[in-house]
Amino acid sequence: MKISRSFSRFQLGDEEYEENYGKVIKSLLSTGEHKFFVATDPYGRYLGHVWVCLKIDTADFVPSAYIYGIETLFPGMGIGSALLKKAEEWAKRVGARKISLRVDVNNPARKWYAEKGYSERAVIMEKPL
Amino acid sequence: MKISRSFSRFQLGDEEYEENYGKVIKSLLSTGEHKFFVATDPYGRYLGHVWVCLKIDTADFVPSAYIYGIETLFPGMGIGSALLKKAEEWAKRVGARKISLRVDVNNPARKWYAEKGYSERAVIMEKPL
Repeated sequence: MKISRSFSRFQLGDEEYEENYGKVIKSLLSTGEHKFFVATDPYGRYLGHVWVCLKIDTADFVPSAYIYGIETLFPGMGIGSALLKKAEEWAKRVGARKISLRVDVNNPARKWYAEKGYSERAVIMEKPL
Repeated sequence: MKISRSFSRFQLGDEEYEENYGKVIKSLLSTGEHKFFVATDPYGRYLGHVWVCLKIDTADFVPSAYIYGIETLFPGMGIGSALLKKAEEWAKRVGARKISLRVDVNNPARKWYAEKGYSERAVIMEKPL
Protein backbone atom coordinates (compact mmCIF):
# COMPACT_ATOMS: atom_id res chain seq x y z
CA MET A 1 0.00 0.00 0.00
CA LYS A 2 1.43 3.34 -1.03
CA ILE A 3 0.11 6.77 -0.19
CA SER A 4 1.73 9.13 -2.65
CA ARG A 5 4.27 11.37 -0.99
CA SER A 6 3.55 13.99 -3.63
CA PHE A 7 0.55 15.21 -1.64
CA SER A 8 2.73 16.54 1.16
CA ARG A 9 3.30 20.29 1.26
CA PHE A 10 6.13 19.96 3.78
CA GLN A 11 9.80 19.11 3.29
CA LEU A 12 10.55 15.86 5.09
CA GLY A 13 13.69 13.80 5.47
CA ASP A 14 13.48 10.12 4.40
CA GLU A 15 13.64 8.88 7.97
CA GLU A 16 10.98 11.26 9.31
CA TYR A 17 8.77 10.49 6.34
CA GLU A 18 9.01 6.72 6.84
CA GLU A 19 8.38 6.93 10.56
CA ASN A 20 5.36 9.23 10.16
CA TYR A 21 4.03 7.23 7.23
CA GLY A 22 4.07 4.10 9.40
CA LYS A 23 2.17 5.90 12.15
CA VAL A 24 -0.50 7.09 9.71
CA ILE A 25 -1.07 3.63 8.25
CA LYS A 26 -1.21 2.05 11.71
CA SER A 27 -3.68 4.66 12.88
CA LEU A 28 -5.93 4.29 9.83
CA LEU A 29 -5.92 0.50 10.15
CA SER A 30 -6.78 0.63 13.87
CA THR A 31 -10.43 1.54 13.21
CA GLY A 32 -13.07 0.06 10.93
CA GLU A 33 -13.26 -2.82 8.50
CA HIS A 34 -10.76 -2.61 5.65
CA LYS A 35 -10.85 -3.99 2.14
CA PHE A 36 -8.28 -3.85 -0.65
CA PHE A 37 -9.07 -4.57 -4.28
CA VAL A 38 -6.23 -5.01 -6.76
CA ALA A 39 -6.68 -4.76 -10.52
CA THR A 40 -4.45 -7.04 -12.60
CA ASP A 41 -3.94 -7.79 -16.26
CA PRO A 42 -4.70 -11.29 -17.64
CA TYR A 43 -1.19 -12.35 -16.55
CA GLY A 44 -1.79 -11.32 -12.95
CA ARG A 45 0.37 -8.22 -13.13
CA TYR A 46 -0.56 -5.23 -10.96
CA LEU A 47 -2.51 -2.42 -12.66
CA GLY A 48 -3.90 -0.53 -9.70
CA HIS A 49 -5.68 -0.80 -6.37
CA VAL A 50 -8.26 0.75 -4.11
CA TRP A 51 -8.23 0.82 -0.30
CA VAL A 52 -11.65 1.25 1.27
CA CYS A 53 -12.72 1.24 4.92
CA LEU A 54 -16.11 0.87 6.60
CA LYS A 55 -16.65 2.85 9.79
CA ILE A 56 -19.11 5.19 11.50
CA ASP A 57 -19.09 8.67 9.97
CA THR A 58 -18.15 11.53 12.32
CA ALA A 59 -20.75 13.91 10.85
CA ASP A 60 -23.69 11.66 9.98
CA PHE A 61 -23.23 8.86 12.56
CA VAL A 62 -24.14 6.18 10.02
CA PRO A 63 -21.97 3.34 8.66
CA SER A 64 -19.92 4.90 5.87
CA ALA A 65 -17.21 3.79 3.52
CA TYR A 66 -14.02 5.83 3.04
CA ILE A 67 -11.74 5.53 0.10
CA TYR A 68 -8.27 5.95 1.61
CA GLY A 69 -6.41 5.42 -1.62
CA ILE A 70 -7.01 4.68 -5.26
CA GLU A 71 -4.12 4.39 -7.69
CA THR A 72 -3.67 3.10 -11.21
CA LEU A 73 -0.52 2.57 -13.27
CA PHE A 74 -2.14 3.63 -16.53
CA PRO A 75 -4.64 6.49 -16.67
CA GLY A 76 -7.55 6.67 -19.11
CA MET A 77 -8.08 2.91 -19.41
CA GLY A 78 -11.02 2.61 -17.04
CA ILE A 79 -9.01 0.90 -14.30
CA GLY A 80 -9.84 3.62 -11.75
CA SER A 81 -13.52 3.53 -12.69
CA ALA A 82 -13.62 -0.24 -12.27
CA LEU A 83 -11.87 -0.06 -8.89
CA LEU A 84 -14.21 2.69 -7.69
CA LYS A 85 -17.23 0.64 -8.73
CA LYS A 86 -15.82 -2.39 -6.92
CA ALA A 87 -15.32 -0.34 -3.74
CA GLU A 88 -18.86 1.07 -3.96
CA GLU A 89 -20.37 -2.40 -4.43
CA TRP A 90 -18.44 -3.76 -1.45
CA ALA A 91 -19.44 -0.74 0.67
CA LYS A 92 -23.12 -1.21 -0.13
CA ARG A 93 -22.94 -4.94 0.57
CA VAL A 94 -21.42 -4.42 4.03
CA GLY A 95 -24.04 -1.84 4.98
CA ALA A 96 -22.51 1.57 4.22
CA ARG A 97 -25.11 4.31 3.71
CA LYS A 98 -22.66 6.50 1.80
CA ILE A 99 -19.12 6.51 0.49
CA SER A 100 -16.68 9.38 1.02
CA LEU A 101 -13.21 10.48 0.08
CA ARG A 102 -10.88 13.42 0.47
CA VAL A 103 -9.40 15.19 -2.52
CA ASP A 104 -7.04 18.18 -2.57
CA VAL A 105 -8.70 21.41 -3.78
CA ASN A 106 -6.44 21.63 -6.85
CA ASN A 107 -6.57 17.95 -7.75
CA PRO A 108 -8.17 17.35 -11.19
CA ALA A 109 -9.67 14.15 -9.71
CA ARG A 110 -12.26 16.43 -8.09
CA LYS A 111 -13.99 16.71 -11.45
CA TRP A 112 -13.64 12.98 -12.12
CA TYR A 113 -15.40 12.13 -8.83
CA ALA A 114 -18.16 14.66 -9.59
CA GLU A 115 -18.78 12.81 -12.87
CA LYS A 116 -19.04 9.59 -10.86
CA GLY A 117 -21.88 11.04 -8.78
CA TYR A 118 -19.90 12.39 -5.82
CA SER A 119 -20.87 15.78 -4.42
CA GLU A 120 -18.90 18.14 -2.20
CA ARG A 121 -19.97 17.81 1.39
CA ALA A 122 -17.29 19.51 3.47
CA VAL A 123 -14.06 21.41 3.26
CA ILE A 124 -10.82 20.76 5.12
CA MET A 125 -9.39 24.12 6.17
CA GLU A 126 -5.92 24.56 7.59
CA LYS A 127 -3.41 27.09 8.81
CA PRO A 128 0.34 26.72 9.15
CA LEU A 129 1.71 27.17 12.69
CA MET B 1 -18.27 16.49 24.96
CA LYS B 2 -21.06 16.94 22.47
CA ILE B 3 -20.87 16.68 18.72
CA SER B 4 -23.93 18.41 17.40
CA ARG B 5 -26.41 15.98 15.93
CA SER B 6 -27.61 18.71 13.61
CA PHE B 7 -24.77 17.96 11.18
CA SER B 8 -26.24 14.57 10.31
CA ARG B 9 -28.05 14.28 7.00
CA PHE B 10 -29.55 10.92 7.90
CA GLN B 11 -32.59 10.04 9.99
CA LEU B 12 -31.46 8.06 13.03
CA GLY B 13 -33.33 6.56 15.97
CA ASP B 14 -32.15 7.61 19.44
CA GLU B 15 -30.65 4.21 20.17
CA GLU B 16 -28.75 3.95 16.88
CA TYR B 17 -27.54 7.52 17.27
CA GLU B 18 -26.22 6.94 20.78
CA GLU B 19 -24.49 3.70 19.86
CA ASN B 20 -22.85 5.17 16.76
CA TYR B 21 -21.95 8.38 18.58
CA GLY B 22 -20.11 6.33 21.20
CA LYS B 23 -18.19 4.45 18.51
CA VAL B 24 -17.12 7.69 16.84
CA ILE B 25 -15.87 9.24 20.08
CA LYS B 26 -14.01 6.06 21.03
CA SER B 27 -12.42 5.88 17.61
CA LEU B 28 -11.35 9.54 17.62
CA LEU B 29 -9.88 9.21 21.11
CA SER B 30 -7.93 6.06 20.19
CA THR B 31 -5.31 8.00 18.21
CA GLY B 32 -3.25 11.07 19.01
CA GLU B 33 -2.86 13.41 21.96
CA HIS B 34 -6.08 15.15 23.01
CA LYS B 35 -6.68 18.43 24.74
CA PHE B 36 -9.92 20.10 25.86
CA PHE B 37 -10.19 23.76 26.76
CA VAL B 38 -13.32 25.03 28.47
CA ALA B 39 -14.31 28.69 28.59
CA THR B 40 -16.12 29.77 31.74
CA ASP B 41 -17.54 32.99 33.12
CA PRO B 42 -16.09 34.52 36.32
CA TYR B 43 -18.40 32.22 38.32
CA GLY B 44 -17.02 29.09 36.67
CA ARG B 45 -20.10 28.52 34.51
CA TYR B 46 -19.61 26.85 31.12
CA LEU B 47 -19.51 29.17 28.09
CA GLY B 48 -17.98 26.93 25.46
CA HIS B 49 -15.21 24.49 24.65
CA VAL B 50 -12.76 23.34 22.03
CA TRP B 51 -11.51 19.79 21.47
CA VAL B 52 -8.16 19.58 19.72
CA CYS B 53 -6.01 16.57 18.87
CA LEU B 54 -2.37 16.23 17.83
CA LYS B 55 -1.54 13.47 15.37
CA ILE B 56 0.34 12.78 12.13
CA ASP B 57 -1.45 14.21 9.10
CA THR B 58 -2.52 11.71 6.43
CA ALA B 59 -1.61 14.03 3.53
CA ASP B 60 1.45 15.91 4.77
CA PHE B 61 2.94 13.32 7.17
CA VAL B 62 3.84 16.00 9.72
CA PRO B 63 2.54 16.44 13.29
CA SER B 64 -0.75 18.32 12.91
CA ALA B 65 -3.50 19.51 15.16
CA TYR B 66 -7.16 18.82 14.40
CA ILE B 67 -10.03 20.72 15.85
CA TYR B 68 -12.70 18.05 16.40
CA GLY B 69 -15.21 20.39 17.95
CA ILE B 70 -15.65 23.97 18.95
CA GLU B 71 -18.86 25.18 20.52
CA THR B 72 -20.00 28.30 22.35
CA LEU B 73 -23.23 29.06 24.18
CA PHE B 74 -23.30 32.70 23.10
CA PRO B 75 -22.20 33.74 19.63
CA GLY B 76 -20.56 37.08 18.82
CA MET B 77 -18.86 37.54 22.19
CA GLY B 78 -15.39 36.39 21.16
CA ILE B 79 -15.61 33.11 23.04
CA GLY B 80 -15.00 31.05 19.89
CA SER B 81 -12.08 33.26 18.87
CA ALA B 82 -10.50 32.90 22.31
CA LEU B 83 -10.95 29.11 22.24
CA LEU B 84 -9.50 28.85 18.73
CA LYS B 85 -6.48 30.91 19.77
CA LYS B 86 -6.00 28.69 22.81
CA ALA B 87 -6.10 25.55 20.63
CA GLU B 88 -3.59 27.05 18.18
CA GLU B 89 -1.21 28.03 20.97
CA TRP B 90 -1.38 24.55 22.48
CA ALA B 91 -0.88 22.94 19.04
CA LYS B 92 2.22 25.03 18.35
CA ARG B 93 3.64 24.29 21.80
CA VAL B 94 3.31 20.51 21.34
CA GLY B 95 4.98 20.58 17.93
CA ALA B 96 2.15 20.77 15.37
CA ARG B 97 3.25 22.20 12.03
CA LYS B 98 -0.31 23.10 11.06
CA ILE B 99 -3.84 23.05 12.41
CA SER B 100 -6.82 21.68 10.48
CA LEU B 101 -10.56 21.31 10.74
CA ARG B 102 -13.50 20.12 8.72
CA VAL B 103 -16.45 22.37 7.98
CA ASP B 104 -19.58 21.58 5.99
CA VAL B 105 -19.72 23.33 2.59
CA ASN B 106 -22.80 25.37 3.55
CA ASN B 107 -21.66 26.23 7.07
CA PRO B 108 -21.22 30.01 7.56
CA ALA B 109 -18.26 29.16 9.83
CA ARG B 110 -16.29 28.60 6.63
CA LYS B 111 -16.01 32.38 6.25
CA TRP B 112 -15.21 32.82 9.93
CA TYR B 113 -12.26 30.41 9.70
CA ALA B 114 -11.02 32.13 6.52
CA GLU B 115 -10.92 35.40 8.47
CA LYS B 116 -8.84 33.62 11.12
CA GLY B 117 -6.21 32.71 8.52
CA TYR B 118 -7.42 29.24 7.52
CA SER B 119 -7.34 28.32 3.84
CA GLU B 120 -9.16 25.54 2.01
CA ARG B 121 -6.88 22.58 1.45
CA ALA B 122 -9.12 19.68 0.50
CA VAL B 123 -12.70 18.70 -0.18
CA ILE B 124 -14.67 15.81 1.27
CA MET B 125 -16.78 14.34 -1.52
CA GLU B 126 -19.47 11.76 -0.96
CA LYS B 127 -22.16 9.74 -2.64
CA PRO B 128 -25.20 8.05 -1.06
CA LEU B 129 -25.36 4.27 -1.49
